[in-house]
Amino acid sequence: MRILHSVPADDGFYMPAEFSPHYGCIMIFPHRRDSWQNGAYAARKAFAEVIGIISQTEKVTVCARYDDYDSARFMLPENVRVIEMESDDSWARDVAPTFVTNGKEIRGIDWGFNAWGGLEDGLYFPWDRDNKMARKLCDLLDVDTYDKRSFILEGGSIHSDGEGTIMTTESCLLSRGRNPDMTREQIEAELLRCLGAKKVLWLRRGIYNDETNEHVDNICAFTSPGEVVLSWTDDRSDPQYEMSASCLEYLESVTDARGRRITVHKLPLPAPVTVTEEECAGLDDMNGVPTRTPGERLAASYANFYISNGHVLVPQFGDKNDEKAIDILSGLFPTRKVVGVYARDILIGGGNIHCITQQIPAAGLR
Amino acid sequence: MRILHSVPADDGFYMPAEFSPHYGCIMIFPHRRDSWQNGAYAARKAFAEVIGIISQTEKVTVCARYDDYDSARFMLPENVRVIEMESDDSWARDVAPTFVTNGKEIRGIDWGFNAWGGLEDGLYFPWDRDNKMARKLCDLLDVDTYDKRSFILEGGSIHSDGEGTIMTTESCLLSRGRNPDMTREQIEAELLRCLGAKKVLWLRRGIYNDETNEHVDNICAFTSPGEVVLSWTDDRSDPQYEMSASCLEYLESVTDARGRRITVHKLPLPAPVTVTEEECAGLDDMNGVPTRTPGERLAASYANFYISNGHVLVPQFGDKNDEKAIDILSGLFPTRKVVGVYARDILIGGGNIHCITQQIPAAGLR
Repeated sequence: MRILHSVPADDGFYMPAEFSPHYGCIMIFPHRRDSWQNGAYAARKAFAEVIGIISQTEKVTVCARYDDYDSARFMLPENVRVIEMESDDSWARDVAPTFVTNGKEIRGIDWGFNAWGGLEDGLYFPWDRDNKMARKLCDLLDVDTYDKRSFILEGGSIHSDGEGTIMTTESCLLSRGRNPDMTREQIEAELLRCLGAKKVLWLRRGIYNDETNEHVDNICAFTSPGEVVLSWTDDRSDPQYEMSASCLEYLESVTDARGRRITVHKLPLPAPVTVTEEECAGLDDMNGVPTRTPGERLAASYANFYISNGHVLVPQFGDKNDEKAIDILSGLFPTRKVVGVYARDILIGGGNIHCITQQIPAAGLR
Repeated sequence: MRILHSVPADDGFYMPAEFSPHYGCIMIFPHRRDSWQNGAYAARKAFAEVIGIISQTEKVTVCARYDDYDSARFMLPENVRVIEMESDDSWARDVAPTFVTNGKEIRGIDWGFNAWGGLEDGLYFPWDRDNKMARKLCDLLDVDTYDKRSFILEGGSIHSDGEGTIMTTESCLLSRGRNPDMTREQIEAELLRCLGAKKVLWLRRGIYNDETNEHVDNICAFTSPGEVVLSWTDDRSDPQYEMSASCLEYLESVTDARGRRITVHKLPLPAPVTVTEEECAGLDDMNGVPTRTPGERLAASYANFYISNGHVLVPQFGDKNDEKAIDILSGLFPTRKVVGVYARDILIGGGNIHCITQQIPAAGLR
């Protein structure tokens, strides 16, 4: 593995869309007792279900801590690769590399990671184990890695259409906890240089109470170039209404890197999902402080799906809109099987199926 | 990775010779402060030199503990893969899988490991990190693994000619610390079943003061089928004389699996190498007990070489026989470059170049 200090765009590399072919997928076996109730017991089952589906059409590599290797190996299918790697938590989307390709070869980008806001408004301290994973994963896969550790970014805060357009949220990328010394223009330029893109679409907000400062991957996703799904509620009394409406207004006002207008498909939200007293009781405190409060609203959204080679894995919440979300996505992904996974036990950790996965593009893995 | 409980021989698998083509080599970045003086400072340099040479013609994968990853990555060449894996010490030969092949596919054997003798006469406790490595390395390489954890064996205690003959030592394989409930016949049968072989050659002894109970890989090695080098001294006052002589007598009395008589090339030993007071001072105690005593004789031998695709890496001790060993091996390996590596800083840990390496055969790695 070479550690590169050049610019991906200058080297002819770009970030492909998630719906392009994958070599595989990276995930992390959950363990953190203040993120996942009951020692991650239920979370591991939910992760295993996700892994089981993805591994039908992709090579899944699961990172397990030394102490968790045997449990992971026992729980997961034979065709899944379990490797030993320390982590602070289990959000592969945000700590694994963002892969770029030139069509022949892939490389990984090793962004700086500071637990979604560092000492400003991050979610835990320390985060050094997480921050070291991207480089180690490139080493493991034997692909070169771009050293972008000086730029704080999580994979969940960006989407690519693979044709020059990146989508992100202002609330996250302009947050004080990430790159406070960079202007919006500088951040945009860095995204374009690193991701080999031509245009950044800046949604204003994400999902209400999303503790990542509202990652784009929880509210909106490309389903094909020029086409997105947007999490939506018609309930004007819900604080989410204004947030989603601002995104819709923006998306209807812009064109993408190829000059196309964006087709927006509204993806209904489930009714507000709140954490129960029992669930909170199963979570360890963090330095003596509870990490969740009974009744707290969780950032539930169907937009947090993962597009694998053969499936679209969609979170389900036991809500009347569960099926509707699957129907909408089935129409938009006609070549894939759209499957629901009951994901409450992932959501309690603070994210969902997209957040716990990171695709490895197909091109040219040695 | 499938965990297999069948018998390699029944499945058509056998252990190829080390001089057959390799896909790569597994090594471990040293760290143990009671094995390697001065926090493994000198050992890391010596390991890095070995890795540098092997990596010229093979893909080297180096296991580093979480805390050592950055140091290893910094010290080692770019084309070497560094992966995170816990270990108790750094003897890849003994803790990595023994690979077998059917010519199309390779599989790993996960032997039981108990630190060269367990609570009977093992060298450290606990050894659980080491014992878990073989399976994890198969998982990493995405090859199936035979679960042979109930049978205690180290890779350094066996050599294969790739044509049905296994060579080992009685002192090690019949030691009380390994498989005390098995007879010699049962142990031999297990070797043949696991390694897909037809005959076991049983040398009586190994190298004087070799704390592995005298592994075969420190005294004798196949250079081609039917041909071996044997560590030798002409000094009849040296306790090694009788040990080597017993091996010579045995080897001259037997035939291999193909019915060939064995051609034995004597490989001179260096003059006795003893550990210095300064070296001992650089070693941490083990539970309050020194691991080496000044003046203690180390198990130095030129037979502890590694055969890579392009090189034969031979330990050097600053002895008058260093060059002679290289000359003899150069004659026996005409298609490879025979190179010396000053190996005192590996020897102090208790083994040498062969002990810190484990080849991965070339056939059919996915």
